[in-house]
Amino acid sequence: MATSAEEEEELLDEHHRINLRRSASNVTSQVAIVGSHVCPIESLDYELVENDLFKDWRHRGRAHIICYVTLKWSLCFLIGALAGAVGFFNNLAVENIAGFKFVVTSNLMLAKKYAWAFGVFAGSNFVLAMFASVLTAYIAPAAAGSGIPEVKAYLNGIDAPDLFSLRTLVVKVVGCIAAVSSSLHAGKAGPMVHAGACIASTLGQGGSGKYHLSCKWPRYFRNDRDRRELVTCGAGAGIAAALRAPVGGVLFALESVSSWWNSALLWKAFFTTAVVGVVLRALIDICNGGKCGLFGKGELIMFDVTSDTIAYHLADLPPVILLGVIGGLLGSFYNFLLEKVLRIYNLIHEKGIGYELLLAATVSILTSCCLFGLPWLASCRPCPGGLSEVCPSIGSGFGIFKKFQCPPHHYNDLASLLFNTNDGTIRNLFSAGTDAVFQKSSMLLFFAASYFLGIVSYGLVAPAGLFVPLILTGAAYGRLVGMLVGKHSTLDHGLFAVLGSASVLGGSMRMTLSVCVIILELTNNLLLLPLVMLVLLISKTVADTFNANIYDMMVKLKGLPYLDAHAEPYMRQLTVSDVLTGPLQIFNGVEKVGNIVHVLKTTGHHGFPVVDGPPFSSSPVLFGLILRAHLLVLLKKKEFLHACTLSGVDASKQFSADDFAKRGSGRCDSIEDIELTGEEMETCIDLHPFTNTSPHTVVETMSLAKALILFREVGLRHLLVVPKSSSSPPVVGMLTRHDFMPEHILGLYPLLLKSRWKRSESPLLLK
Amino acid sequence: MATSAEEEEELLDEHHRINLRRSASNVTSQVAIVGSHVCPIESLDYELVENDLFKDWRHRGRAHIICYVTLKWSLCFLIGALAGAVGFFNNLAVENIAGFKFVVTSNLMLAKKYAWAFGVFAGSNFVLAMFASVLTAYIAPAAAGSGIPEVKAYLNGIDAPDLFSLRTLVVKVVGCIAAVSSSLHAGKAGPMVHAGACIASTLGQGGSGKYHLSCKWPRYFRNDRDRRELVTCGAGAGIAAALRAPVGGVLFALESVSSWWNSALLWKAFFTTAVVGVVLRALIDICNGGKCGLFGKGELIMFDVTSDTIAYHLADLPPVILLGVIGGLLGSFYNFLLEKVLRIYNLIHEKGIGYELLLAATVSILTSCCLFGLPWLASCRPCPGGLSEVCPSIGSGFGIFKKFQCPPHHYNDLASLLFNTNDGTIRNLFSAGTDAVFQKSSMLLFFAASYFLGIVSYGLVAPAGLFVPLILTGAAYGRLVGMLVGKHSTLDHGLFAVLGSASVLGGSMRMTLSVCVIILELTNNLLLLPLVMLVLLISKTVADTFNANIYDMMVKLKGLPYLDAHAEPYMRQLTVSDVLTGPLQIFNGVEKVGNIVHVLKTTGHHGFPVVDGPPFSSSPVLFGLILRAHLLVLLKKKEFLHACTLSGVDASKQFSADDFAKRGSGRCDSIEDIELTGEEMETCIDLHPFTNTSPHTVVETMSLAKALILFREVGLRHLLVVPKSSSSPPVVGMLTRHDFMPEHILGLYPLLLKSRWKRSESPLLLK
Repeated sequence: MATSAEEEEELLDEHHRINLRRSASNVTSQVAIVGSHVCPIESLDYELVENDLFKDWRHRGRAHIICYVTLKWSLCFLIGALAGAVGFFNNLAVENIAGFKFVVTSNLMLAKKYAWAFGVFAGSNFVLAMFASVLTAYIAPAAAGSGIPEVKAYLNGIDAPDLFSLRTLVVKVVGCIAAVSSSLHAGKAGPMVHAGACIASTLGQGGSGKYHLSCKWPRYFRNDRDRRELVTCGAGAGIAAALRAPVGGVLFALESVSSWWNSALLWKAFFTTAVVGVVLRALIDICNGGKCGLFGKGELIMFDVTSDTIAYHLADLPPVILLGVIGGLLGSFYNFLLEKVLRIYNLIHEKGIGYELLLAATVSILTSCCLFGLPWLASCRPCPGGLSEVCPSIGSGFGIFKKFQCPPHHYNDLASLLFNTNDGTIRNLFSAGTDAVFQKSSMLLFFAASYFLGIVSYGLVAPAGLFVPLILTGAAYGRLVGMLVGKHSTLDHGLFAVLGSASVLGGSMRMTLSVCVIILELTNNLLLLPLVMLVLLISKTVADTFNANIYDMMVKLKGLPYLDAHAEPYMRQLTVSDVLTGPLQIFNGVEKVGNIVHVLKTTGHHGFPVVDGPPFSSSPVLFGLILRAHLLVLLKKKEFLHACTLSGVDASKQFSADDFAKRGSGRCDSIEDIELTGEEMETCIDLHPFTNTSPHTVVETMSLAKALILFREVGLRHLLVVPKSSSSPPVVGMLTRHDFMPEHILGLYPLLLKSRWKRSESPLLLK
Repeated sequence: MATSAEEEEELLDEHHRINLRRSASNVTSQVAIVGSHVCPIESLDYELVENDLFKDWRHRGRAHIICYVTLKWSLCFLIGALAGAVGFFNNLAVENIAGFKFVVTSNLMLAKKYAWAFGVFAGSNFVLAMFASVLTAYIAPAAAGSGIPEVKAYLNGIDAPDLFSLRTLVVKVVGCIAAVSSSLHAGKAGPMVHAGACIASTLGQGGSGKYHLSCKWPRYFRNDRDRRELVTCGAGAGIAAALRAPVGGVLFALESVSSWWNSALLWKAFFTTAVVGVVLRALIDICNGGKCGLFGKGELIMFDVTSDTIAYHLADLPPVILLGVIGGLLGSFYNFLLEKVLRIYNLIHEKGIGYELLLAATVSILTSCCLFGLPWLASCRPCPGGLSEVCPSIGSGFGIFKKFQCPPHHYNDLASLLFNTNDGTIRNLFSAGTDAVFQKSSMLLFFAASYFLGIVSYGLVAPAGLFVPLILTGAAYGRLVGMLVGKHSTLDHGLFAVLGSASVLGGSMRMTLSVCVIILELTNNLLLLPLVMLVLLISKTVADTFNANIYDMMVKLKGLPYLDAHAEPYMRQLTVSDVLTGPLQIFNGVEKVGNIVHVLKTTGHHGFPVVDGPPFSSSPVLFGLILRAHLLVLLKKKEFLHACTLSGVDASKQFSADDFAKRGSGRCDSIEDIELTGEEMETCIDLHPFTNTSPHTVVETMSLAKALILFREVGLRHLLVVPKSSSSPPVVGMLTRHDFMPEHILGLYPLLLKSRWKRSESPLLLK
C-alpha cells in the first residue's frame, strides 16, 4: 500500500476536522453554487432491498408481471406522445411570437420609422425576457438554465427535490418559449430535455401530488430503478422533439445523459423517440394545411440541405482538418469562458432575485442593441439575378435576403443572420449554393456576436439551452473558414457551415455519436458522414486536451457529487479503509426507540448497519442495512415492543410493502415531524423484518478503484466495509457517494494533490 | 424463502448426480452442439486482481499512462484501417469473381447455349462453395457460420480458443469471398464482424504467437478488460466495413454484440468506425478511376434510393402497420425454422467432415438449380420505352432488365433478381420508380426462394452471414406487399421494399436502433425515418411474443453459457446458497505443493479461495482468491519453501508481473505439462503474495437475482459466498457463470419448471 505512516498520522490528526466537514457536507457541499436557489440533494438508491416485507415483490404472479410490463410500455408511449406534442407546441409558439415581432418591426423599417422599429423590437424582447425570468425566479427556480446537467446528475444517482415537479415542467416550457422568442441567444433543446424528464417523472409517480392530480398507480414505479429508466426515455424524447431527430435523441440520452445502459433500456428509449417521431410527423402534416400561422409549412428535417452535388476529394481534407482543430479550440475556449461568466453571475445571483432580474434585463437590452445595431455596419448589396427566392424579402419573410435599411433591390446580408429567428439563421447558413450571398466581414461580425452573446446569455435565470447557440456559432465559423479557404476547396460553403457546427459542438459538448447523428438528422445529408465523423474526432480530441465537457463542467460548478465511471489514478493506491471517516452509527437488531430517534436527529445518514449482538447471537454479526426512510415509517406507525426481545409476529400483517414504497421526488418525511412521548421512547422496535439482509459489502483491503467500479456499476447508495479478520467488529465502515469524490479524498490526503497523481485536468488521459 | 423442505431434500438426493454433471460440464456442456468441431470454452475475468505483484500496476507513472493511451488509440486506428481495407477487398473480390461468372454465363445464354450456360454456372458455384467449405472444415472450423453469436458470447465473458486466431481470420475472409461469390444465399456482414474481432484481438495480443509473428507489446493489453474493448471496436468496424455504415457499425456493436458499455468505449468505437468510413471513402475514390474491374464505380451509400418525391400521409399508415405485423411473424418464423434446420444439420455434421462437405455440395447444387431454373417460369416482358437504362442489359450488366432467355427487346424480371449478385438484387428491389417492372408472380417466387434458400444455406460449414439474406427476403416481401396494396397506398414500391427489409430484420434480429440506422445509411433516405421506426417497433414487438432473437437462439444452440442482463422471475425466490453445489476446494495460505497439484489435476475449477488457518490466524479467515493460471505459473517456476511457514521474502523479486499476464486466447498452460519430483511435492508455497486479497463476496442469504446483477454488471468470473454468522467457516461456496444458468438452476429445482415461474419463452415479459 502506498499510504505511508505519515499520511496515516495526518489522517488521525485531521479526524476531528473531517468529521465536522463530513457531517456538514450533507447540507452545504451539495448545493448548487450556480443557479439562483440553494437546493439540498440526496442520493438515489438502485439496490434491491431484500427484507421480509418484499416477499410479495418476489412472489409477483404472472398477471402482475404482465400488468407491470403493459404499464411501463404505456408510460413510454405517453412520454413520447406528450414530449412530441410539447416540442411541437414550443416550436409553433416561438415561430409565431418571434415571427409576429419581426413582421411588425420589418413593417416599421419599411416605413423608415427606424426608432420606432428599435423600440418595438427591444421592448418586446425586454418584456418576453423579463416574463421568462420572473416566472422562473419566483415560481420554479429549478427551471433555470438548460437542465441537462441536472438530468445527467439525476441519472447518475443524485436527486434534488422539485427538479422534476409539475411546476418546474410548466415554467420550463412557458419560460423557454418566452426566452427563445425574446431573441436571447438561447436554445430550446436543453429545456426540452428537462421538460421530457419532468414529463417522465411526473407520469411515473402517477401525477403531481402537490396539486392533488395524483392517481393511484400500482406502486411499481415508486422506486428509483424504474424512475431512472423513465427519465432516460424522457430525456431522449426531449431532444428528439426539440430537434426532430428521433435517433439522435436516443443516442443523446445514452451517450451524454445516462450513466447506466442496457439493451432493454435502449429498446424502451427507441420506442419513446419513435413515438415522438411519428407524432411530430403527424402534427407537421396538419400544419401543411396552412393552419399554423407564421410557422408555415414544416418539414421533418429542420434544415434540409440535400444537394445532388456533394463531392469531395483528398484536396478537401486539409481545410476540413483545419476546421476541426480550430473548432476544438473554439469549443474548449467557449467552455472556459462560460465557466468564468457563470462564476461572476453566481456572485450577482447571490445578492437576491432583484439582481438576478436586473442581470437578465441588462443582457436582454444588450442583445437587442447588438441584433438591431450591428446590421447597420454591413453594406447593402444588390440582389443577384435569376433567383427563385424573393429579393429582398419584405414583411414576414425569414429568408436569406433581408431588406432591413437597404434601398429597393438591395439586401443586407448581416440582417438576414442577426435579425432573424435562430432556426431561420441556421437554415440560411446551412443552405447550399449561397457562396456569394454573404460577405466575409458580415460573417466575422456575426460569428463574434454569436460567440459573445451565447456566453453571456446562458447563466441567466430564464430557461435556456446551449445546443442551438453552439450550432449557430459553429455554422458561422464554418462558413467563415469556407470563405477564407476560397478556391482551395471545392466544398460548398453551406457544407462548411454544417461541418463547422459539428466541430464546435464536438469541441464544447464532446459528444461524438449523438452529435454526428443529430447533424445528419438536421440536415439530411448522409454523404457528408465521413467528413462529419472526421471533424468530430479531431475537435473532440483537441478540446479534450484542455478541459472537460461543458456539462461535466457545469455539474462540478453546481457542486453535484457526480460519480465518474473511471477511477482516478491515485484511487488505485488507496484502500477503502483509507477514506472511511467519522464514527459509524450502528443499530442493534432490536433497538430502543429513543436511540433511533436520537441517531436520526443527530446525523444526516440515510442507511445504518444492523448488528445482532450477544443476546441474539454468540458474537456480533452483521444482520443487514436499514434505511432512514424505512425507520421513519416504523416510527410513524408506532407499533413498538414493550420488551426488547424478538417480536416473533409477522411484520407483513402490520405493514404492507406499499408503506415503504418510495414516494416522489422531494416528498420525504422528516424526523422532526414525528412526535413521540417519553414512554414510547423507552420501548423497542424489532428491526429484523425491515432490514435489507443482503447489502453489498467489500473487504477493507479492497482498493478504492475496485470499489468504485462496484459502486458505480451496480448503482449503490451505501456500501458496507467489512473487516479482513473475524475478530474485529463485523462492520468497520460505510462508503457513500461522497467518499469517492476526489474533493473528499484529496481533502484527506492533500499530499496526493501535489504528487504526480494529481487529478488529471485533461480527460484525454483517463479514457 | 420459497425453497420448501421437499426441494431441499431433493437437492440432497441429487447431490451426487449434480456434482458429476458439474465437474463434467467444464468439458461437455460447454461445447458447440452446432458447428463442426467440439470447442471447449472458458470464462473471461474482468476483475482487478489485487495482489502484491500488481503493485507496479498501481504505481504506473504518468509516462506509462501516456504510452498506454497512445497505444490504445493507435490500435483502434489500425483496427479501423485494416477492417476498412479488408471489407473493401472483400467487396471488390466478390463483385469481380461473381461478375466474371455472370458475364461468361450470360454470353453463353446469348449464344443460346443454355446447357453450357447452366454447366458453367453450376460448376463454378460448386467449385467456389466447395473451396470455402474445405478450407473451413480442414483449416479453421471456428470460421464457419456468421461468427456474430461467438463474438457476442466472447463479449459476454465466454472465451473459446482459436475463435480469434490469425488462421480463423484468413479462412473467414477467403472463405466468405468464395461462399458469397458462389451464389450461396450467404451474407458478408456477419463474417466481417468476426473478421473485425479477429483483427482486433490479434493486434491486441501483438500478433499471432503461433506463426512467430508476435511482437513485444508492453503487457498492457494482455488482460481481458482491454481485449474486450478492442474486440467491441473490431466488431463495430466489421459491420461498418461490410455495409459501409459507420454509425450503424457502432450501434450494432453496442446494441447487439456488446454486453458492457460505457461512454469511453462508445468514443473508441466511434473513432474506429470513423476511420473505417474515411478509409472506405478514400478507396472508393480510387475505384472511381475505373481500376477496379467489374466492381465499377462505387458509392459510399450502397443502395442510394433518394428520391425527391417521398411523401406519405395517414392513408399510408395501415399498409405500413400490416407490413410490420407480417414482417414480425415472418422474422420469428424464420428463426423457428432456422433452429430446426440447424438441429438437423448438426446431426449430419456429427458424422464427420465428409458428410459436412456432402451437405454443402448438395445445397450448392440445389441453389444453382433454383437460381438458373426458376427464371424460366417467368414470362418475358417487352422493354418499356423511354428508359435511361439499357434494356435488356447484355453481358456484364447487373441491371434491372436481364435478357436471360428472352427474345430481343424483352426482359425477364425474375432473372434480374435471381440471376444476379446479392447487392445487385437489393439495388433493383430498392430502386424507386420501378413499380411496373416486376410481376406479382415473379416477386412471390423470388420471395419464397429467398426465404427457403436463406434458411438452408446458413448452417453449412462455410463462412456465411445472415444480414444480407434477411435484407433480400425482406425487400422481396415488402415489394410484394406494395404490389398487393396497389393503389391503396401512394408509397413507391421501392420504399415498400426498404420497409420490408426493416421489418424482417427487426422480426428476426430484434435490433432496433442499429437496424434503423443501418437501413438509413444503406439507402440515404432520412425522410423515411418515422416509418422505419414504426415498422421496427411493430415487427420486434410481434416477433418477441413468439421466440428469442436469432443470435440468442444460436448462442443457446451452441451451448454457450451466455449470461442475460435480466434475472428470471424465479431467481428472486432462490438465495445464492440454494444453487451452490459440490464440495468447495480451499487452499491454506501456505499450502503443500502436492495438495495443489492434486486439486488442480482432479478439478476443473479456475479459482480457489485461500483461507488462513490456525497457525497464522486465531480463527479461519478468508484471505482471498487465487487463480489456477497463477498457481500454474508458481508451479512452473518451482520456487518452493522447504518449511511450511510464511516465506517473508519479497515475491516481486522472484517474479515480475509479466509472468502473470494473461496470454492470448487458447494459449494456456496445463497442469499435465508440469512435472514435479516426489520431493518437490512435499514442499510448500506461500500463496499470500499471489492471492487476490479483495475478491468480491456476497452473503449467503442474498437472492440469486441480486447476485446476478452484481456478477453481470461488474463482469466477474468468481463470486465468493460468505456465511451470515461468524461461527461458520469463512467461505461457504463460490458462484461462477454456470451457477446462474437457467439450465443449472432448473436442474436443481425441477419443480420451478412446472410452476408458474417457469422460464418465460417470450422475451417480451422480461424487459
